[in-house]
Amino acid sequence: RLSLIKSKFRLAVVQLQVTSVKADNLSRARRLVQQAAGQGSKVVLLPECFNSPYGTSFFSDYAEKIPGESTQMLSEAAKESQVYLVGGSIPEEDGGKLYNTCAVFGPGGEMILKHRKIHLFDINVPGKICFQESETLSPGNSLSTFDTPFCKVGVGICYDMRFAELAQVYSREGCQLLVYPGAFNMTTGPAHWELLQRGRAVDNQVYVATASPARDEAASYVAWGHSTVVNPWGEVISKAGAEETVIYADIDLQYLSDIRRQIPITAQRRDDLYSVTSVQEASG
Amino acid sequence: RLSLIKSKFRLAVVQLQVTSVKADNLSRARRLVQQAAGQGSKVVLLPECFNSPYGTSFFSDYAEKIPGESTQMLSEAAKESQVYLVGGSIPEEDGGKLYNTCAVFGPGGEMILKHRKIHLFDINVPGKICFQESETLSPGNSLSTFDTPFCKVGVGICYDMRFAELAQVYSREGCQLLVYPGAFNMTTGPAHWELLQRGRAVDNQVYVATASPARDEAASYVAWGHSTVVNPWGEVISKAGAEETVIYADIDLQYLSDIRRQIPITAQRRDDLYSVTSVQEASG
Repeated sequence: RLSLIKSKFRLAVVQLQVTSVKADNLSRARRLVQQAAGQGSKVVLLPECFNSPYGTSFFSDYAEKIPGESTQMLSEAAKESQVYLVGGSIPEEDGGKLYNTCAVFGPGGEMILKHRKIHLFDINVPGKICFQESETLSPGNSLSTFDTPFCKVGVGICYDMRFAELAQVYSREGCQLLVYPGAFNMTTGPAHWELLQRGRAVDNQVYVATASPARDEAASYVAWGHSTVVNPWGEVISKAGAEETVIYADIDLQYLSDIRRQIPITAQRRDDLYSVTSVQEASG
Repeated sequence: RLSLIKSKFRLAVVQLQVTSVKADNLSRARRLVQQAAGQGSKVVLLPECFNSPYGTSFFSDYAEKIPGESTQMLSEAAKESQVYLVGGSIPEEDGGKLYNTCAVFGPGGEMILKHRKIHLFDINVPGKICFQESETLSPGNSLSTFDTPFCKVGVGICYDMRFAELAQVYSREGCQLLVYPGAFNMTTGPAHWELLQRGRAVDNQVYVATASPARDEAASYVAWGHSTVVNPWGEVISKAGAEETVIYADIDLQYLSDIRRQIPITAQRRDDLYSVTSVQEASG
């Protein structure tokens, strides 16, 4: 069975230009997933809040149940393109609460994971950026990984990436690729977006991919863009600019194994001195 | 008593040119500590293996007991300059074993900490760099912090920096400054030296300082140099080139508090979902 595991596969990241017209966001996302599949991609990643402008004033208007219109499109797109589709995120309504939720679909069109953002984006950098997701959103309560024939994948959404522990637990659970749909802004983007990804990659010796919406200077929240893929040596191997585009990276699990053999930190950790653990696996 | 805590202090990093003449290394180190103190520094950091060339073939020849010649100099230098002196590291002999050890002295000349490198540098990047510290050295078994009137400081040596857990435990224990005497090389230096420091700083919202020996192209192990200080926003605020020099940084604990209030990740961690803990505090 091990011999069936492919050691190399193509990942695509769709840096979608998100507008206020939901139907348009959905149809362009679907078209770009098809385009990515046409380039041989086996795993495709969409950005955070891909069906709605990002902002607390928009979340309730654009929110859907899951399953719903947006996840129906994702299911169909995954199936028609035969890809693992990490559906960025959408505002999800459930039981009167709103969540920032990533749904993942397998190539058969089945939903295989639902990750609700567990760290809400509440920051206040005076004169630069103030945003309080918790005004309208509720946090998820579970860590989220899924299996593919290539490798195990860990999922976080945007601000989740600031918390090193999440990536550490995912990589200890065997993930070799971490994906973060995210929408950093014009303050935190240049300061931390790439640094955090490269840090997660080199500390855990995994691939890391982020998917941002394209930049819209007219939006109330201006996304940084620059969707990126980083390899386990900490190098940026693919990176978008600010505009709508699809970027590609060949994920090489043999290379990952080589890095872990060369600098064997995953085997050299001093488990007798410290530990990083998943406390629980509550349902989110 | 809180009012006595100073919120700002000057840190100096001595990027010493280490030669094969121990007495010369000691005398130049002492002179540079004096120079740093003359610039108002309250905490001074020396590089890894500052009294000896770095290499498994040198460690036993240059090793000393603690106390011994090198730590006697450090004690006197700390006292005469009235600084907290993080004495880089020296090869230490104890009970027939060798350690890579950092001794820290207070302004009264008293030794206040001894950190033995807990993660030995055993790596093999084919065609680039192969080094096996464990051929000659034994690892320490304890985490190491010390208090100053300014803030609590966490200590690691070089390869210890690759292990995010150490920095996480230190910062959870209240450290606001992490210091890593270290000697990265011409392969891992350009790839990871700055990235690791910036990652530790931004993930834990602490100051991070590294002290490397100056580069000696004729040495068997060529150090990268580039001693660096990074602030809690992840910015490099002071950085040496490859040559012998002293660099300075003003550590601003009010700024650190501001960063932690603006992006409050230290309060937003999901302790209900994951935890990073110190397993034990064995004596090392």
